[in-house]
Amino acid sequence: MSTSYQIASIPGDGIGPEVVSATIQVVEKLAKTLGTFQINFTHIPWGTNYYKEHGRYLSEDALTTLRKYDAGLFGAVGDPDVPDHISLWGLLLAIRGPLQLYANVRPVRTFPGTKCPLNTATGGIDWMLVRENSEGEYSGQGGRSHVGQPWEAATEVAIFTRVGIERIIRFAFETAQSRPRKHLTVVTKSNSMRNGMVLWDEIAASVAKDFPDVTWDKMLVDAMTVRMVWKPESIDTIVGTNLHMDILSDLAAALAGSIGIAPSSNLDPTRKNPSLFEPVHGSAFDIIGKGIANPVGTFWSAAEMLTWLGEKDASAKLMQCIENVCAAGILTPDLGGSSSTQGVVDAVCSEIEKLK
Amino acid sequence: MSTSYQIASIPGDGIGPEVVSATIQVVEKLAKTLGTFQINFTHIPWGTNYYKEHGRYLSEDALTTLRKYDAGLFGAVGDPDVPDHISLWGLLLAIRGPLQLYANVRPVRTFPGTKCPLNTATGGIDWMLVRENSEGEYSGQGGRSHVGQPWEAATEVAIFTRVGIERIIRFAFETAQSRPRKHLTVVTKSNSMRNGMVLWDEIAASVAKDFPDVTWDKMLVDAMTVRMVWKPESIDTIVGTNLHMDILSDLAAALAGSIGIAPSSNLDPTRKNPSLFEPVHGSAFDIIGKGIANPVGTFWSAAEMLTWLGEKDASAKLMQCIENVCAAGILTPDLGGSSSTQGVVDAVCSEIEKLK
Ligand SMILES: CC(C)[C@H](C(=O)O)[C@@H](O)C(=O)O
Ligand SMILES: CC(C)[C@H](C(=O)O)[C@@H](O)C(=O)O
Repeated sequence: MSTSYQIASIPGDGIGPEVVSATIQVVEKLAKTLGTFQINFTHIPWGTNYYKEHGRYLSEDALTTLRKYDAGLFGAVGDPDVPDHISLWGLLLAIRGPLQLYANVRPVRTFPGTKCPLNTATGGIDWMLVRENSEGEYSGQGGRSHVGQPWEAATEVAIFTRVGIERIIRFAFETAQSRPRKHLTVVTKSNSMRNGMVLWDEIAASVAKDFPDVTWDKMLVDAMTVRMVWKPESIDTIVGTNLHMDILSDLAAALAGSIGIAPSSNLDPTRKNPSLFEPVHGSAFDIIGKGIANPVGTFWSAAEMLTWLGEKDASAKLMQCIENVCAAGILTPDLGGSSSTQGVVDAVCSEIEKLK
Repeated sequence: MSTSYQIASIPGDGIGPEVVSATIQVVEKLAKTLGTFQINFTHIPWGTNYYKEHGRYLSEDALTTLRKYDAGLFGAVGDPDVPDHISLWGLLLAIRGPLQLYANVRPVRTFPGTKCPLNTATGGIDWMLVRENSEGEYSGQGGRSHVGQPWEAATEVAIFTRVGIERIIRFAFETAQSRPRKHLTVVTKSNSMRNGMVLWDEIAASVAKDFPDVTWDKMLVDAMTVRMVWKPESIDTIVGTNLHMDILSDLAAALAGSIGIAPSSNLDPTRKNPSLFEPVHGSAFDIIGKGIANPVGTFWSAAEMLTWLGEKDASAKLMQCIENVCAAGILTPDLGGSSSTQGVVDAVCSEIEKLK
């Protein structure tokens, strides 16, 4: 008897449908080949087309719908016809916050087939980025007043709560603890931001006491960019706010080789809600329909999903197959290769075939 | 008859006094050698020692005092004895905002003697970073409530005004216009921040109409880090918010070679107030008193000051002398050299001597 997982597949906009359909092929092939688990993907049509038809990005009962699944696999959101702040708050941010997927986890490492642009990273890069995913700069408060006057004022209110900070820092310490080097860097900007950022520092110092086997340091977000460039080997796990880690995770993926392969897990560590897995890249409208979207970020996200669901062995095998294909130079044009999306899918499926 | 400039010298904390005194030697030598202008530095003791004695970082009449000078040369602020948010808001941020030094200008380029860590930057780096320096995330509003409760909330309120955005974007377009490539990138995060960031986008589009000879594009701050790493040659001038450019300017300096040489000008483009020039690096307490602090960031800041004061020719000559010394490998240990601070000063003074 094998476990059967129900996955909500939300391809979304742009190249989202291309990379999600590529990933479903690969994961279904993996399940069939290994025979150790079963997996069913249910298509959910939320995205800009849905919005154009229904006037909203998500169905009214979206959260209830999602809770019927064990996890979600998400493609991308963003369409030239709709301002980004409408589409993102309508879809992605309307899930991350309300479902309390408060831990966004982004592993970054040098990967076969990608080139590292740093000549300081001779030992390679292997970082684990943990992003607070439910509050802070993404709390959504703020507004505009005196519109059109010279003294028009617009605010963006970042709200940090003790609960919100405590749980993400604890999660990050646990993450660091599970890694060989057991080191955590807590990123803030507590020299210029005197409230929420100082609270982060205080809570980090207090949570650290529960993890005597984890070494940790803290760093300002601006200085952290310098460290990533000049001392990549000094970094293991990083935790920071929603905005800081948004920036640092793009930088990290770029420094390691490519944002096209970077995965992202939106986790509810309490497991009360299904977690959502998505590539870091966006909807990439410039290459839509050309069949050349890089599916590796979504493959890797699906592997993270399998780990989260408890299928560690299947996940590791999938990663090995993906890495073999990349190492063999079967790459999409963004990585300097000449393969199509389907070409990469087929190559990964052949690798999976060998697992039999 | 030559113009005589009165400069407020504010060495501040840590290695501030070492790099400022080094710079005064060099600039005085330059003035004496060229004979085309005169310059007097007046020492102002603000900083953590002053704070320990007087309970405040600045004297009560600090703004009035500063207004007596043509410009200020600042070292660093920050001391292990005082929380950073106290020292920075007490000193540096208490000048930048209140004096309305709203344009922070940070040139970044590959410099003789430093190594570029990027193997994508084969053509070298030559960027001009313009940072909004008076509002946004550094408005200083926000607070903490329900202290100690699990639901404790701490806010950081970013306030953007139409006046504040308009003037910095206009300044940035003018800056781009004065450069050979005439290209500006406006950085925001208007997909997740729906108020101030959207206002930035609107104002950028409207100001751009006044600069038909400047090409421009806009970019999200996270994506901008990727572009800096992978397409450095596509970048010319960048403008963004106080926090975004704080982060991007550290990253830029690191990518170009070293944060130890990076200069920063806090300008009041209306010239109602004296502008303040400072190296980007901080107080670096770990090397205080060792005589090895890198003075190049402060030299370069002083050269920017001379340009701002109208001494373009003297400024260019000073830069040439500094570059010659760096190219000759006379470098402090942070750049892989073995020279002392005074060694670099002496070498630059010998170069200046040759200008006679
Ligand atoms: C699409 C956008 C809202 C998003 C973010 O800022 O969180 C993206 O950049 C990411 O990193 O997932
Ligand atoms: C010292 C600190 C307040 C400052 C800032 O954040 O502005 C520094 O990082 C800078 O870039 O000048």
